Amino acid sequence: MQALPEQVTIKEVGPRDGLQNESVEVLTADKIAWIDQLSRTGLSYIEFSSFVHPKWIPQLKDAKQVALGIDRNPDITYAALVPNQKGLEGALETGVDEVSVFMSASETHNKKNINKSIEETYPVLKPVIEEAKNAGKTVRGYVSTVFGCPYEGDISAEQVIDVSSRLFDLGIDELSLGDTIGVANPLQVDRTLTEIRSQLPFDQLAMHFHNTRGMALANVLVSLEHGITTFDASVGGLGGCPYAKGATGNLATDDLIHMLHEMNIQTGVDLEKLTEAGLFIQSKLDKYLPSHQMQMCTKERV
Amino acid sequence: MQALPEQVTIKEVGPRDGLQNESVEVLTADKIAWIDQLSRTGLSYIEFSSFVHPKWIPQLKDAKQVALGIDRNPDITYAALVPNQKGLEGALETGVDEVSVFMSASETHNKKNINKSIEETYPVLKPVIEEAKNAGKTVRGYVSTVFGCPYEGDISAEQVIDVSSRLFDLGIDELSLGDTIGVANPLQVDRTLTEIRSQLPFDQLAMHFHNTRGMALANVLVSLEHGITTFDASVGGLGGCPYAKGATGNLATDDLIHMLHEMNIQTGVDLEKLTEAGLFIQSKLDKYLPSHQMQMCTKERV
Repeated sequence: MQALPEQVTIKEVGPRDGLQNESVEVLTADKIAWIDQLSRTGLSYIEFSSFVHPKWIPQLKDAKQVALGIDRNPDITYAALVPNQKGLEGALETGVDEVSVFMSASETHNKKNINKSIEETYPVLKPVIEEAKNAGKTVRGYVSTVFGCPYEGDISAEQVIDVSSRLFDLGIDELSLGDTIGVANPLQVDRTLTEIRSQLPFDQLAMHFHNTRGMALANVLVSLEHGITTFDASVGGLGGCPYAKGATGNLATDDLIHMLHEMNIQTGVDLEKLTEAGLFIQSKLDKYLPSHQMQMCTKERV
Repeated sequence: MQALPEQVTIKEVGPRDGLQNESVEVLTADKIAWIDQLSRTGLSYIEFSSFVHPKWIPQLKDAKQVALGIDRNPDITYAALVPNQKGLEGALETGVDEVSVFMSASETHNKKNINKSIEETYPVLKPVIEEAKNAGKTVRGYVSTVFGCPYEGDISAEQVIDVSSRLFDLGIDELSLGDTIGVANPLQVDRTLTEIRSQLPFDQLAMHFHNTRGMALANVLVSLEHGITTFDASVGGLGGCPYAKGATGNLATDDLIHMLHEMNIQTGVDLEKLTEAGLFIQSKLDKYLPSHQMQMCTKERV
C-alpha cells in the first residue's frame, strides 16, 4: 500500500444529494434542526440544499427557508447547488458561502439530466461561475458519471479530462468527480487517477463515490493512495441514484469517518455526534439508512 | 496501487460459517439442494458443514446427512470443520476432501469459544491434523480474532505469528486469518501482512474478512496488493459473528466476485449462478441477506 495522507476533508452532501433522492417529504423545520446538528459535529463543509426549480426536485423546494433558518457556524462552508443564473440569484440572496455547478461527462446523461448537450452547458455555467466569483463566492464543479453512465456505459478518461478542464477554465475552485451510479471499481479509480494526474490540478480534486456495489471504501482507499484528500459523503448513506435499481446511495459519511479514524487519518469530525445526526434524519424517513454505522445503532432491523 | 494478481481462489464458507450463525433452522434437503447449486457455479472449494457437537451448533447437526446427500463434483474440494478427534472421525466417515481445525489468536476468545487455553489447544489439534494427513486429507487451519478480539481488543502480530507458526509446525496445509468481528481496517491489514510476510509461508495464507463496518472489500484490496490470492467468503453475506451487535456477516462471495471480475481478476465463478444460489438460501430464511448483489436482486426491501 502507498503512504496515505494524514488528514482528509469530508464534504457532507446529505442535505442535498442525500435528501434529493428521498421520496418522503422532510419538514423544513426538521431539515434545519438536522443541519444544525451536522454543524455541531466538526464538519467543515455542508452542502445544505439545491436552488433548482422545485418542479425537478420537490424535496428541496424550501432551499431558501432552510438557508435562512439554519445557525451558520462561521467555521463551516455552507454550499448550495445551482443549475443556472436564476438558481444562483436565489442562492446569493441567502448568503451562501459556496455554490456548486454540475454537468455530466456523459453526453446522454447530461441531456437527460439537464436537457442540454455538453457543449450547450458551458455557456449556461460560464455566467453562473463568473457572477458567483464576482460576488466573492467560491465555486465547486460536479462532474457526474465519471466512472460509468447508465445510458452509455464506460466513459473515457479523455472525456472526463475534457469536461473537467473546461470547468477549470471557467474558474471553478474545486472539482468533484462523481461515480453517480456506483459502478467504479478500485482498478478503474487507480487508472483514471493515474491518467488525469498530469492533466488536471490534482489538489483541487474531490472524489464522490456511491456504495451501490459495496466498493466505495475500497475506492476511497485507492484515492488516498493517490493523495486525494477531499471526499464527498452523505450521513447514513442517505440518498442514492434514482436510475440505479437497488442503489444503496452515497458513500456514508459515518462509515467513511470510521474507517479513516481507524487508519489514524484525521477528519475533525466527532463520529458519535455525526451518528446522532444520522439517527435523527432516519427517524424522519420511512426506511433504515444503509450505512454500517447506522445498522450497528439501530436495533431490530430485518 | 501495487500490481494485483490475475487470479484468485474463493473458498465458499456459507454452508458452514454462514449457516452456523443463522437462527432459522434450514432443512437438510434444502442445504443439500443449495450446496449442489453452489457446486454448479464454478467454485472450487466449499466448506459444507461442521462436525462439532450439535449442542454447540444445532444448525449443523446434520453434517453427516449433508455430506452424504450432496452431489460431489470431483473438481471441487469439499471441506468440513472439525474441533477434535471425534469430529474428525465423523468427517472421515463421509469422505471429506479436507478438514479444517480452528483456534483463536486471543487467549480469552479461545477459552470462551473452545473452553481451552491456547496452549491446551495444540495437543487437541495435533492428533487431529496427524490423523487427517494419514488419511490422505489436506488440513486447513483457521486462526480467529487476528485483527481484534471482542474481549481483549487489539491482538499483536507477534501473537498471530506465534499461533500460526505452531499450526504450520503441526502440519496444516493452509492458514486462514480471520477478522472474526469485522474490525480490521486497511492500514492494519497492510501492517499485519507486512509483519508476517517473512515469518509465515505467505503462499499458504488465506484471508477471512467480515463486513461488519463495510471495510471488507477495502481489506481485500490491500491483501491483493500484498499478493494474497485466497479469500474466504459467504454467499449473500450469510452469517455473522454472534458476539458483534449488528454484525452484517461474512464478506459476501457475490460482492467479492463482482469486484474482482470488474478488476479483471479471474475467479472461475459464474456470478449469475452464484446469485441464484444466494437467492435460494435467502428464501429459506426470515431475513434479507446483506450483500449488495442480493439487494440489487431483491425487490421491495425496506
